Amino acid sequence: MSGELVDNLLTDALARVQSDIDSAFDAWLPVPDDARRRLVEAMRHATIGGGKRVRPLLLIATADMFGVSRTSSINAACAIEAIHSYSLIHDDLPCMDDDAMRHGKPSVHKAFDEATAVLAGDSLHALAFDILCHRDTSSDPFVRSELVATLAKASGHDGMAGGQMMDIVAEQEQFDLGQITRLQQLKTGALLAASVEMGAILGRVAPEGRTHLRAYARDIGLAFQIADDLLDVEGDEALAGKALRKDEGQGKATFVSLMGADKARSQANMLVEQAIGILASYGEDASLLTALARFIVERDR
Amino acid sequence: MSGELVDNLLTDALARVQSDIDSAFDAWLPVPDDARRRLVEAMRHATIGGGKRVRPLLLIATADMFGVSRTSSINAACAIEAIHSYSLIHDDLPCMDDDAMRHGKPSVHKAFDEATAVLAGDSLHALAFDILCHRDTSSDPFVRSELVATLAKASGHDGMAGGQMMDIVAEQEQFDLGQITRLQQLKTGALLAASVEMGAILGRVAPEGRTHLRAYARDIGLAFQIADDLLDVEGDEALAGKALRKDEGQGKATFVSLMGADKARSQANMLVEQAIGILASYGEDASLLTALARFIVERDR
Repeated sequence: MSGELVDNLLTDALARVQSDIDSAFDAWLPVPDDARRRLVEAMRHATIGGGKRVRPLLLIATADMFGVSRTSSINAACAIEAIHSYSLIHDDLPCMDDDAMRHGKPSVHKAFDEATAVLAGDSLHALAFDILCHRDTSSDPFVRSELVATLAKASGHDGMAGGQMMDIVAEQEQFDLGQITRLQQLKTGALLAASVEMGAILGRVAPEGRTHLRAYARDIGLAFQIADDLLDVEGDEALAGKALRKDEGQGKATFVSLMGADKARSQANMLVEQAIGILASYGEDASLLTALARFIVERDR
Repeated sequence: MSGELVDNLLTDALARVQSDIDSAFDAWLPVPDDARRRLVEAMRHATIGGGKRVRPLLLIATADMFGVSRTSSINAACAIEAIHSYSLIHDDLPCMDDDAMRHGKPSVHKAFDEATAVLAGDSLHALAFDILCHRDTSSDPFVRSELVATLAKASGHDGMAGGQMMDIVAEQEQFDLGQITRLQQLKTGALLAASVEMGAILGRVAPEGRTHLRAYARDIGLAFQIADDLLDVEGDEALAGKALRKDEGQGKATFVSLMGADKARSQANMLVEQAIGILASYGEDASLLTALARFIVERDR
């Protein structure tokens, strides 16, 4: 495919996923007519109309390679985005990163209050598993159970939350490149890898195939984080919709501070090419995952 | 059975469950030798060696009626206790109830710090679903999927977290008895009912039987909360291991403030007798659930 066709493919797919995920959250989160109204409004604020939806697109693009129904893949994608959104709400809290802006809007504790933000995060966390065990996500209980096991492992103390703890420790101790790599594999890599793996689970891919696709996800996960570190140094706050240049202010080790911007950029590009190589056996079916891998290092926000 | 035999039955069962749940958390939470150490230590602080373990005992006593293996029921009980523990960690945060003590120990944000407390709560939340989807909990994926669906629904915005939101609103608005009942059905009732229901799911009880047992759980859930309100007014802080007389200080409506202590006590006793009546068809098999219902209103902490 030509570069322009690939760009259109990705732009169209992202726009479609953004709209589908907004609709899915709208359907999963009707506003109740009682004292829980504020909670559900906070959950909707965090999930509807914001974010790039990289994780949902990863999941859906993977599932599409194996002919999974759109309803199944959107539900599973909505679950992984619910986990990502809850982690951002809690991450933005004053006792964590203390961020006032997210996706160009006030963060949840600013738009509502801290207690509501804690509970909205917790409720989105539960919603993710509620959605995964719904019969519309998969009629096969084995698939549902595998989806839950994969997402729970990727988000808990051996995955995302563990990586966030390492990130806090990294503010006090000087981490080396090995430790930063491990930190990022957990903090952002685990959930990106789970997105791909959950797509493969819905597609009933055998364990060897899942391992294969996990390698793709691991490479783009690391590339994604290096790109994030580069954006933190070189990016535009207005485009990013959040505060940048925080790592430098905190004297925190990042891929960029440890390797320099040029070497970090070429490392990210190399990882993306390696990831794309893994997809070769899927041929044209993998066009979207290929385009997504490139997008991850070329994005400006 | 005589009163003394029943007391012994309950005392022995509680002691055994307390020790089994401590061992289970110890096994699920090995301390890693990296920067996640502090996170896992906080999770262990919150879960090992504290709490009455009422929810685990409810689950295990129900599962025992249907011949479920001890390994299965302890794992599922550990999952529900992980949800209960995460909710206490987040509830104790300064932006929520701001409690310094829990189970006679410093609460997690006091023993560690606020960021670690947020992440420890989130990690226990994920751990619960990780445990439920483990093959040691059930070899049947349908059972695993039903356990997850039940627990996710009971803990999210339509259950526990929704009830906690209502509880925050109740500090500003004056709730009537109907609203307080609904609040408590969600805040504490949903998870107590899920404990019983998850025991029944492990025991492959048919839907009608599950409805029957849910009615028992609903009654003791409400009785449990009325007893809590009475303890808040009349209890001993040293025995409770936490601050009491908070509702009165906040001018918050409770069953006791709305009904008076005497009427609240007789209402709780009536609910317990009604719950015990529901168990009649199970005969001697239900001795422990019967004793547990009585314990819930007679406990001093």
